[in-house]
Amino acid sequence: MTERPTTATELLGTEGFGAENLPYGSCRPVGSVTSGRLAVRLGDHALDVTSLLDGAGPLTPRARAAVEGRANLDALLATDHTVWTEVRAWLRGVVTDPAMTGTVRAAATPLAEVETLMPFTVADYVDFYASENHASNIGRMFRPDDAPLKPNWKHLPVGYHGRSSTIVVSGTDLHRPKGLRPEKDAGPSFGPSRRLDIEAELGFVCGGSAPQGEVSLKSAAEEHLFGVVLFNDWSARDIQAFEYVPLGPNLGKSFASSISAWVVPWEALGSARVPAPPRDEPLAPYLDDTRAEPYGLDIALEVLIDDQRVSTPPASTLYWTAPQMVAHMTVNNATLRPGDFLGSGTVSGTEPDQRGSLIELTWGGARPLTDATGEDYSFLRDGQRVTLRGTAPGPDGSVISFGECTGTILPAT
Amino acid sequence: MTERPTTATELLGTEGFGAENLPYGSCRPVGSVTSGRLAVRLGDHALDVTSLLDGAGPLTPRARAAVEGRANLDALLATDHTVWTEVRAWLRGVVTDPAMTGTVRAAATPLAEVETLMPFTVADYVDFYASENHASNIGRMFRPDDAPLKPNWKHLPVGYHGRSSTIVVSGTDLHRPKGLRPEKDAGPSFGPSRRLDIEAELGFVCGGSAPQGEVSLKSAAEEHLFGVVLFNDWSARDIQAFEYVPLGPNLGKSFASSISAWVVPWEALGSARVPAPPRDEPLAPYLDDTRAEPYGLDIALEVLIDDQRVSTPPASTLYWTAPQMVAHMTVNNATLRPGDFLGSGTVSGTEPDQRGSLIELTWGGARPLTDATGEDYSFLRDGQRVTLRGTAPGPDGSVISFGECTGTILPAT
Repeated sequence: MTERPTTATELLGTEGFGAENLPYGSCRPVGSVTSGRLAVRLGDHALDVTSLLDGAGPLTPRARAAVEGRANLDALLATDHTVWTEVRAWLRGVVTDPAMTGTVRAAATPLAEVETLMPFTVADYVDFYASENHASNIGRMFRPDDAPLKPNWKHLPVGYHGRSSTIVVSGTDLHRPKGLRPEKDAGPSFGPSRRLDIEAELGFVCGGSAPQGEVSLKSAAEEHLFGVVLFNDWSARDIQAFEYVPLGPNLGKSFASSISAWVVPWEALGSARVPAPPRDEPLAPYLDDTRAEPYGLDIALEVLIDDQRVSTPPASTLYWTAPQMVAHMTVNNATLRPGDFLGSGTVSGTEPDQRGSLIELTWGGARPLTDATGEDYSFLRDGQRVTLRGTAPGPDGSVISFGECTGTILPAT
Repeated sequence: MTERPTTATELLGTEGFGAENLPYGSCRPVGSVTSGRLAVRLGDHALDVTSLLDGAGPLTPRARAAVEGRANLDALLATDHTVWTEVRAWLRGVVTDPAMTGTVRAAATPLAEVETLMPFTVADYVDFYASENHASNIGRMFRPDDAPLKPNWKHLPVGYHGRSSTIVVSGTDLHRPKGLRPEKDAGPSFGPSRRLDIEAELGFVCGGSAPQGEVSLKSAAEEHLFGVVLFNDWSARDIQAFEYVPLGPNLGKSFASSISAWVVPWEALGSARVPAPPRDEPLAPYLDDTRAEPYGLDIALEVLIDDQRVSTPPASTLYWTAPQMVAHMTVNNATLRPGDFLGSGTVSGTEPDQRGSLIELTWGGARPLTDATGEDYSFLRDGQRVTLRGTAPGPDGSVISFGECTGTILPAT
């Protein structure tokens, strides 16, 4: 009996990061200061995509040019979905072909030996507010005598533009931001935020371009959504509370927002598609998904603070889907560019331990959490480390994992 | 008696666009589809900057590299203020040196023969709300029983991030945007905006970089503010009204915002500096300009609709200054990048004919304007053309003019 040849996936793949997933990132050796190189993750290894091309010839020139020698996803995002599909199919072939095992091993570096950089350049960034539980919780806390949701909430995905330059990759630590904080019976005071919070979200990476706007739900799903990351939209609640009327959040958000280092391809999430919640209001045609494919995503999130699990928000509960966000942003003729990035807004489930922000988990500070040393906290203290994790169903009972999204709070400068 | 040699400024300069001004733009021949080339405006001519370098040697290699063969201002913005000063001094020398007149004539093309493109790539874009008259007028209209200004307004420059990709150059026409419009006693309806408006603003182009944030007023003024443009932040008031609570304006703004094609150097506006209005509330140290240089700008704006002048907003009345906007945006550690762009918000003076938006000029539609054919209008009709103009005092009694900022409303798609 001859021994069956071994594939790279059998050698290196682990649950969550097998051949079904193959998320993209940008890596360089730890300690180096070179620019990154486009990589794909298999198990606990980063595979240098350019090195995988050695000797391989099946990619079209356009697809090859989009990945060869590239530092990150920018060139691939600037092509179109046919190229994304081609590159992904090629990569899946490479990691599952026993004849390519040597090439893959030569291209592989253990994750412990690489530093991950921003996987793409953010063009415009819009953060939505797509979780009904989250929006209702915030409404109940801030406007107890009013309906929890504003009249617009079920008619359109409410969102605002954020600061693209302050999106950082997982592992980037951040200083506590300073700003103007409201004070009782006095004008505001200037100083470090006292109510520093997290927001556990999904982030959607867009590609291709739609220079005339008006992207349909179907086109968004099939042609413009490239991938998904975990996203922590750090929030300084006191700075935000003082500034946000009437033009929305600004400095309370724009100091830093973190994404996981590995972009899980939209195509890898086919088995995670679930119907969005029932629609309570009739939707305008450009948003109406009642007769469309299911565009919700069954992604289970976890929030850890200093390695203690504090919440498990289910993204399947999001009222608004990623294709709806793309369709909404472009219905007024706004262009879509490669690298446009959309945040879902905080994901909160129906249960108290499924809330994606501290302001909800502690109900505005009324019910503090307790850390491993027994000390209570309601908002983030200096030195605390926040980690988001996520998993989704893959094909044939497999699991699709997201890379972690972590950051530690440093003292104010 | 020998004839005095003639300078290029004497030959080509006109009031407003003489050697004191020299604004930058990006031009290509009318009808061509090539990328633009960096140009400087003298009178009614565009001077190709690279052509001016022929034979001239005084620029340092770094300054030369920032302009030679460049399509627009991006490379110059990415250097620093010492290079901006050097390039500007060189250009002033070239256009005022009789020995260079032939070179300048060879580099000059009449404006009628060039198409102007976006003069720089917009990084992050923030629109402020810096006019007290404007904010008060809007407050009076929308919240008649409340104080016209929100409690935060005099403590910080309120602003929000806009969509960078939808900033377009003067002359770009725009389709009336579609979106969800509020209806009386019913849910919203989807369709073309019925309340399409303008906002006459100044726009501030930033350069250099401040990767750690925390830019002081002085550093903002001396090192990061590169230039000023006229800015029309087109606004769909009905779409904005339905969507903006609680996260601020989004689709009501993100369809298009127009800038004038010529970026007037910050350095050209030294004679236009005026003190900002008296401060009614004590300001946090990072915003306190009471003992600083005057950072207000005495720029007189004009708004024309189909060549009828409808308003003359004075930018000297802005409560918040450009250095305060930069200091505010970065105090929370947000980075500043070359190409960051700030809008002042609508400029409205104290007088009814100094208001910078139709919603104020017609008081929400209650007092329509009358066009040249005698027809009333309160918001923009398809086919109407809006033009912003601006002038400021230059040195020695000269005038600094801004290029026009124009756009015509096309029907909804």
